[in-house]
Amino acid sequence: MNKETTIAAISTAPGVGGIAVARVSGPEAIHHVNKIFRPRRKGTSLLTQPGGTVLFGTLAQPGGEVLDEVVVTVFRAPHSYTGEDTVEISCHGSLFIQQQVLKLLLEQGCALAAPGEFSQRAFLNGKMDLSQAEAVADLIASTSAAAHRMALNQMRGNFSGELAALRGKLLEFVALIELELDFNEEDVQFADRAELKRLAAEIEDKIARLAGSFSLGNVLKNGIPVALVGETNVGKSTLLNVLLNEERAIVSDVHGTTRDVIEDCVNIEGVIFRFIDTAGIRNTDDKVENLGIERTYQKIEQASIILWVIDCTQISEHIEWLTERIAQRAEGKKIILVFNKVDKVDQDERAVVDELFTSFDAERIYISAKKRINTDALQRSLLKAAQLPELQPGDVVVSNMRHYEALTAALAAIRRVDDGLNRGISHDFLSQDIRECMHYIGLITGEITTDEVLGTIFGRFCIGK
Amino acid sequence: MNKETTIAAISTAPGVGGIAVARVSGPEAIHHVNKIFRPRRKGTSLLTQPGGTVLFGTLAQPGGEVLDEVVVTVFRAPHSYTGEDTVEISCHGSLFIQQQVLKLLLEQGCALAAPGEFSQRAFLNGKMDLSQAEAVADLIASTSAAAHRMALNQMRGNFSGELAALRGKLLEFVALIELELDFNEEDVQFADRAELKRLAAEIEDKIARLAGSFSLGNVLKNGIPVALVGETNVGKSTLLNVLLNEERAIVSDVHGTTRDVIEDCVNIEGVIFRFIDTAGIRNTDDKVENLGIERTYQKIEQASIILWVIDCTQISEHIEWLTERIAQRAEGKKIILVFNKVDKVDQDERAVVDELFTSFDAERIYISAKKRINTDALQRSLLKAAQLPELQPGDVVVSNMRHYEALTAALAAIRRVDDGLNRGISHDFLSQDIRECMHYIGLITGEITTDEVLGTIFGRFCIGK
Repeated sequence: MNKETTIAAISTAPGVGGIAVARVSGPEAIHHVNKIFRPRRKGTSLLTQPGGTVLFGTLAQPGGEVLDEVVVTVFRAPHSYTGEDTVEISCHGSLFIQQQVLKLLLEQGCALAAPGEFSQRAFLNGKMDLSQAEAVADLIASTSAAAHRMALNQMRGNFSGELAALRGKLLEFVALIELELDFNEEDVQFADRAELKRLAAEIEDKIARLAGSFSLGNVLKNGIPVALVGETNVGKSTLLNVLLNEERAIVSDVHGTTRDVIEDCVNIEGVIFRFIDTAGIRNTDDKVENLGIERTYQKIEQASIILWVIDCTQISEHIEWLTERIAQRAEGKKIILVFNKVDKVDQDERAVVDELFTSFDAERIYISAKKRINTDALQRSLLKAAQLPELQPGDVVVSNMRHYEALTAALAAIRRVDDGLNRGISHDFLSQDIRECMHYIGLITGEITTDEVLGTIFGRFCIGK
Repeated sequence: MNKETTIAAISTAPGVGGIAVARVSGPEAIHHVNKIFRPRRKGTSLLTQPGGTVLFGTLAQPGGEVLDEVVVTVFRAPHSYTGEDTVEISCHGSLFIQQQVLKLLLEQGCALAAPGEFSQRAFLNGKMDLSQAEAVADLIASTSAAAHRMALNQMRGNFSGELAALRGKLLEFVALIELELDFNEEDVQFADRAELKRLAAEIEDKIARLAGSFSLGNVLKNGIPVALVGETNVGKSTLLNVLLNEERAIVSDVHGTTRDVIEDCVNIEGVIFRFIDTAGIRNTDDKVENLGIERTYQKIEQASIILWVIDCTQISEHIEWLTERIAQRAEGKKIILVFNKVDKVDQDERAVVDELFTSFDAERIYISAKKRINTDALQRSLLKAAQLPELQPGDVVVSNMRHYEALTAALAAIRRVDDGLNRGISHDFLSQDIRECMHYIGLITGEITTDEVLGTIFGRFCIGK
């Protein structure tokens, strides 16, 4: 990325709308737009406008014909999203006009912005730290209230604020230790070891708490994993379709239809559930199917909630065998027993099937997926089983795998510091561990970074942001 | 429509983008947004900002938590698109945020804007006349340079400028005539009849020219109609697919597959062609198919260019019968003879087929639709056959059916005026015809209108414009 270039992109959603916004940022932004913008008020020039000015006028090729009537907003560095001079052009939202506006801007010398390049510049210009910039992408991608709040908290700096404070404390720490190194032969201690130990414990506690929030953060961002399990042909795929409100999984009357694991998300009252349809569990010689069953077991282990679907119309010969297999892998997870096809049995028949599971301590729901009987109650049970803590404004939750990995490494380092203090290791080893902890925290905020990391992070943004 | 309400909508294209823009317009626009907007700079209030101010801050429920960081632009009446107080909120472009911003605005008392309601208000507040407002929708829908230029010219008032001038002249006209009515018994003539006749002729000429531009305008807006005709199974549908670059028409080896007329547009170097696939022409007893052939004849009459597709691999028995039928309906249209399946015949065989059409004066192209041989040349021939005049900035072309109908009625009225002058009819009849002509012109500019007409016009806009 070359900060000397001036970049341009359409920042609004692709497609036809009432209006669209083209964003231009960089040292020549105002100069380039000035060549193609004719303000309606005579004698006005874009070049002399202060930041925060809105001008109405037309966009046209230099000396050429008018392309559109537009509203132009000027932002002066550093008071813009990117921290650079920025011009936003609000034009009519036809695809033709959007293409032509972009073409005009490129002809004036703008470069097409790469995905996330505006946010990357905001980071490089110190407008936000790396974790805040990453939160912008999460914010735009968020589809639920919780994921949105989490991204917003991160974007507004709550997360990096805590990390910066931790890093600041470590810096004091290491400065004193390294001062001791200079006076090595005199064997002095500038850093009060008891106080340092207290600090290390505090930092360890905070980092552990942040790292520990990842499982919640991941669930909020990607959905609560719910595995649909059961024997073949009990109606798992039909139930999944009902839950997803669409025909996604293949539904048929042939046993063992669902060989691949299918995942899809649905937002139930603001909570995202990630449903995992699995191959039916049964004894089979089919190699492909056995592979699917193996994957089913893995999915059970990854899920937080298990919907065990049971066919009311038939008493399975494998109940015991199956109970054992599911229970074995469902330790500590919420299980909901879903008795399907209730419309096809009477009370007595239902009681017989129910009886088989009396030893099983789990919630029971009686539904017909096909007839959509009681599926609402199932949704309510799922919400109850989810039991997500209500996120408060300002709550810091880690949802980013990159952050989680850095926090885990930082945690290991600070624990080595603590351990070293206990064992009274030498200054230089202690200093090295502290520096390592600081390094990993710096990776999150972007105080320490590489082009490769930046490329990966901003590459997943949409263009225009 | 109630101008007392304050309306709100997302004005950018639906979907996820870097940013999205919510637009609020009406007497309470600034007041409503003020309740949910917290400017970053302390002590600033939205309520006291002059028009054209840009403020950075956060959007939040009154007393509640922050939803997003936004940029807000204030426009004061009458200096806005609608002519009312308007606030534009530029927020992050997630679907969740867009929904929530709109929800927040509605909770403050905004009404959800109907499609085109912002433009309708602009019209009702005198910011643009009706034909200009209609051009906004055309502008947003335009997909080619010519359609875009036409809409832009109309939006910028070139069209209504001419019409307003005509109407002004008619008003002078009718004022003098009606003055004569007051002095009826004295038999005076205030209006110089020779001059009036000259004026009527000038107006007739202008309206006739505008009405006459409709066929071009319609073609620019909706595409040049090109009919693909020929016998069954000569490869019309395959050729259409190649021209459209997609699998739209049903292609099979069974004679008479295409019974319905399929239309689709393609943009070849900025010119839009509307291709019409038709049922193959042949003698048949199939009633449904005969119905299709009847429609084929109608389509030939509507088309400007006819691609007559001929199968090189077989000499049709019906050539004479067919030539007669097509020629009969293709009077005055451009015909291109497309010899298909050239890859399956040698030079001599091709010459034999070619020979059959020597009497036919039309351009010939030799292609294979299936192998995509020479289909580029066919596109070039189409462009040549189109021969559209190059639209100049400022050229006035009528593309709207409503305008065309009003112009036609106005033309009839002004011709009656001319005729009446020749026959020396009485003042009151003359005045009535002039008033009628003025009425129809007024329908276009919106000086004369009804709620129903407005509803129809603005109902086809997208929401948010």
